[in-house]
Amino acid sequence: MTDYPVLDKINKPNDIKILPESELPELAREIRAFITEAVSRNGGHLSSNLGVVELTMALHLFLDFPEDKLIFDVGHQTYVHKILTGRKNFETLRQKGGLSGFPKGSESDCDAFDTGHSSTALSIAAGFVTARELKGEKNKIVAVVGDGALGGGMALEAMNNIGKFKSNMIIILNDNEMSIDRNVGGMANYLGKIRTRKTYVNFKAGLENMLDEIPGGKGERIVGRLKHIKDSFKTFFVSGMFFEDLGLTYIGPINGHDVDQVLTALKSASGLNKPVIIHAVTQKGRGYLPAEKRPGKFHGIGPFDLKTGKLLKKPGTGSFTSAFSETMLELGEKDERILGITAAMEFGTGLREFGERFPDRFFDVGIAEQHAVTFAAALAKAGFRPVVAIYSTFLQRSYDQIVHDVCLTKQPVIFMIDRSGITGEDGETHQGIFDLSYLSHIPGLTVMAPKNCAELKKMLKAAVEMNAPVAIRYPKCGEAECAGELPVEDIVYGKAERLSEGSDVAVFTVGHSVDIGIGLKERLESDGFTVSLYNARFVSPVDREAVTEAAKKHKVVVTVEENVKRGGFGEEVAEVILEGGFETGFVNASLNDSFIEHGKRSELLKTYGLDTEEIYGKIRRIIG
Amino acid sequence: MTDYPVLDKINKPNDIKILPESELPELAREIRAFITEAVSRNGGHLSSNLGVVELTMALHLFLDFPEDKLIFDVGHQTYVHKILTGRKNFETLRQKGGLSGFPKGSESDCDAFDTGHSSTALSIAAGFVTARELKGEKNKIVAVVGDGALGGGMALEAMNNIGKFKSNMIIILNDNEMSIDRNVGGMANYLGKIRTRKTYVNFKAGLENMLDEIPGGKGERIVGRLKHIKDSFKTFFVSGMFFEDLGLTYIGPINGHDVDQVLTALKSASGLNKPVIIHAVTQKGRGYLPAEKRPGKFHGIGPFDLKTGKLLKKPGTGSFTSAFSETMLELGEKDERILGITAAMEFGTGLREFGERFPDRFFDVGIAEQHAVTFAAALAKAGFRPVVAIYSTFLQRSYDQIVHDVCLTKQPVIFMIDRSGITGEDGETHQGIFDLSYLSHIPGLTVMAPKNCAELKKMLKAAVEMNAPVAIRYPKCGEAECAGELPVEDIVYGKAERLSEGSDVAVFTVGHSVDIGIGLKERLESDGFTVSLYNARFVSPVDREAVTEAAKKHKVVVTVEENVKRGGFGEEVAEVILEGGFETGFVNASLNDSFIEHGKRSELLKTYGLDTEEIYGKIRRIIG
Repeated sequence: MTDYPVLDKINKPNDIKILPESELPELAREIRAFITEAVSRNGGHLSSNLGVVELTMALHLFLDFPEDKLIFDVGHQTYVHKILTGRKNFETLRQKGGLSGFPKGSESDCDAFDTGHSSTALSIAAGFVTARELKGEKNKIVAVVGDGALGGGMALEAMNNIGKFKSNMIIILNDNEMSIDRNVGGMANYLGKIRTRKTYVNFKAGLENMLDEIPGGKGERIVGRLKHIKDSFKTFFVSGMFFEDLGLTYIGPINGHDVDQVLTALKSASGLNKPVIIHAVTQKGRGYLPAEKRPGKFHGIGPFDLKTGKLLKKPGTGSFTSAFSETMLELGEKDERILGITAAMEFGTGLREFGERFPDRFFDVGIAEQHAVTFAAALAKAGFRPVVAIYSTFLQRSYDQIVHDVCLTKQPVIFMIDRSGITGEDGETHQGIFDLSYLSHIPGLTVMAPKNCAELKKMLKAAVEMNAPVAIRYPKCGEAECAGELPVEDIVYGKAERLSEGSDVAVFTVGHSVDIGIGLKERLESDGFTVSLYNARFVSPVDREAVTEAAKKHKVVVTVEENVKRGGFGEEVAEVILEGGFETGFVNASLNDSFIEHGKRSELLKTYGLDTEEIYGKIRRIIG
Repeated sequence: MTDYPVLDKINKPNDIKILPESELPELAREIRAFITEAVSRNGGHLSSNLGVVELTMALHLFLDFPEDKLIFDVGHQTYVHKILTGRKNFETLRQKGGLSGFPKGSESDCDAFDTGHSSTALSIAAGFVTARELKGEKNKIVAVVGDGALGGGMALEAMNNIGKFKSNMIIILNDNEMSIDRNVGGMANYLGKIRTRKTYVNFKAGLENMLDEIPGGKGERIVGRLKHIKDSFKTFFVSGMFFEDLGLTYIGPINGHDVDQVLTALKSASGLNKPVIIHAVTQKGRGYLPAEKRPGKFHGIGPFDLKTGKLLKKPGTGSFTSAFSETMLELGEKDERILGITAAMEFGTGLREFGERFPDRFFDVGIAEQHAVTFAAALAKAGFRPVVAIYSTFLQRSYDQIVHDVCLTKQPVIFMIDRSGITGEDGETHQGIFDLSYLSHIPGLTVMAPKNCAELKKMLKAAVEMNAPVAIRYPKCGEAECAGELPVEDIVYGKAERLSEGSDVAVFTVGHSVDIGIGLKERLESDGFTVSLYNARFVSPVDREAVTEAAKKHKVVVTVEENVKRGGFGEEVAEVILEGGFETGFVNASLNDSFIEHGKRSELLKTYGLDTEEIYGKIRRIIG
């Protein structure tokens, strides 16, 4: 598996073009082996990358880098592209300072635009096409979008704008019949319908071959002449009319694992002075049996055994996600009003078990975070208690809907926000370091964070009783050993929980940052100081009484949170202390106001402001 | 015009049903006169309401209130509905404590859900339909959506989810060929194509009449039998296949000003156990000639002369909007990289003049704020300097795109955020009171606010030079008289501007709140205190040096901003002071952390925390 004779010939962009055609199948095989081995060591996105090997090879035969622009939607399927542009240092994949798992302009000018969230590629491509026309340039622009991502609102907004373009732009619809979880919605049904029309595929393939023989530009005229024929076969085969209704030319479906077929389609498409959508059918996980069988498991995965596909480290039982999953089952049994809503993340959020037990009360709306939130608001208005489980950074898409459709009208929707704080190896686009800032200022929204799994359970149950909008944020990392052992008092609305009482230093920690608080307490106590440790519980509203009491009685107040400083918990505490006129020292321990790259969570915490020793140093400078 | 004999008979929900059919045309006439007169006095949304008179009448004949649920997308077209549910107190329209210009559950249980932003109604209706099925209820659910709103991402997300429903839901596509400004995109072209097929209309009308004669439920079977016929006429008339591709049944286009035709369509649609879209063509401003001619002007308008349609109060020349508009023309002449981008708001944002002068460099993407921002990011990456002009609350839709597509990749996009702070009569959904909180924590985004129009010009020019993401926020209200006279120093990055120097009180004001600062200064000076008045200019980054200097030298530091407190400018200042260990008093004058209803801006400022006397009182309590 470590022998890559053909792949060894690829060392910089465009090298694939000098390979004899006969070596391409072997190249595909080697790329698959190379990626699977690397991900088995470092973790990463496997299924999606194995699915686009031939597709990406065809794109590299077709395009010239870096002049031409290739944009991968979401961007976790960019490993093959990295390899083909000479970035083969996969031993550093997702390590701090190493290769990112997503496109990064800072790594290579062959990465046209950094992506990480879904459904942005069409807007980016539209911008590049417009820029090209304004500058009178001639380069090619291709966006690769998954079928799931196409149901995201902003992709549809872009499609609605692209139809009128009078200049070439190629969209490859990479249709693998699933987004991160199973695909959902009218678009999925529609694509399913197209996929089953074999006759249509053959007919279209013939048409593409014809078009292919005609030099660029003239193809369009031919298409004009063929319009009558096209119109009639459309009638019979219910083809890409959805796209054509919006003004795009549709080619497909084609076999995305056939380099030749993809290349032919690309050449045909590039002859037209308008946007073209190429519908390529691919298989997630292709070539690695465990991933073919369970593409969802191998979507984003930790290190695993290459032979068996088994995870080397099992997901901890003390994970907040599983605590959420269990509590939902319990609540669902007792209370028929409880609904579970997710946006293409039933596995990751832990809602799958609820969905299996209560299929009528479970809704996976696909990659459609905006719709998910407003849909939940209406269900809440109608008397239900919807629980919306969306990752911290993906929920950013729903900010306006949270403000207007949930909080303004005071609907009792509960947001369960997993992947808060530093998530680690996925990097900038996946670090949940803004949620306290984008949620805490929304009037009427209660924002909480649990210190451990037992507290998450109590908080979720308390949230159901609150009869108002509530957000609960918790991390991917699982509870710290020291936090798991802490007892959990009952939740009292708006009240912090005092875990210890002292008189020198008061430390308020948010959620799982309690482990840093415990570390500080031990360190300070060994110096002879006494520490009041508070578990904040409520980030909005902040427990002003507890803060006031702490400010009165201690020499210094410390806040600890895994969120950027600006707009976070600490600033609100500072405000309370300063307006109260209390004379106490203050240390705000939070993440620096910057984006945070990929790497191990522990390393990143230290680098970006949550290093226990550093916080300790700041406290000691105040108390002497 | 003050005589409404038929309208006088409508005093509570469902009253319209007892009118003889012969009086309906007169009712429509009276409703139009009534609304036009009210808006000419109080201002409001005219064109859209005149366009839906018959449509809303038909809906009220068809539905039973409050059991049935009617959801108006955006909600500014809800006046007719208010009248027909007995809310005729239009003399209080948009006044504090009076009738809201938008649906409000707190006014009437006939308003099924509060709306205010575009494209939410389908998600709301989807939630209600799902709730009805879970509860085994039987009520009718209808969403009214404009053709412009249908291009908004979340409406498309909802459509993608609705297609699979096995239960009735009616969407009225109110197609008036324009959103707030002209309509844009593939969807618009598509609807245009449908509109022109007269033969199709007649054919469909016949079909509807047939269906109408069949009792509920059986209609569906008939539709099954008619499928062959439908399929063939589809081929000929390029009908609603776009919608049908997504799983919706399409009826239309019908004449939205024909009560009978709308009612017939509604009855036909309600017989099907699935979602149905009724495509109704209406005319904005219908029945009032000035509005028919210039529907854009009468979209949202201030008080006007009923006879001539002329505005009673001309828009001030000292408006920030016009300063922006002028500066864009100037910049556009000098710098070919400057682009103007708006989301269906070319008039309101002041970008229209730029668009007329530089049509190739102007982009109205329709109601598609997410796409607008990422499209701009790509154009910036390609070397341009896109200026994105979107109102404060509408930009909330793009929060994730600002974070990930603009700021993470450091693209030099400039956001011009009009309608910041309290906008007044439009109420909760339009008050731009969150922008400092949702923008200031985004790493790498410079956030500024100008004190007057001259400063806006300098800031915009400085922003172009910054070569990084920049947001500039300014209000609808125009510059205060006192502020307009203030001189404007050159912009120095990250630096506040000191307008006066004293030693007792330091006041930092954000943007147009400088007028409150001037008021405080005069009040305090008349008491014998001296005041340093700072124009903050930069909300992110805050000028820490100026704050530190002020905290050292003054007895109290005051911050003034027209934004909620949490996450705003004042909290960051508090943080700087407290962490610096300075002993100074502190007053944070900002808006209470709550939603703010409709009313006059001056009244609302006083009520919600920005009352000069109250702030003065707080300062005096500290300095004695």
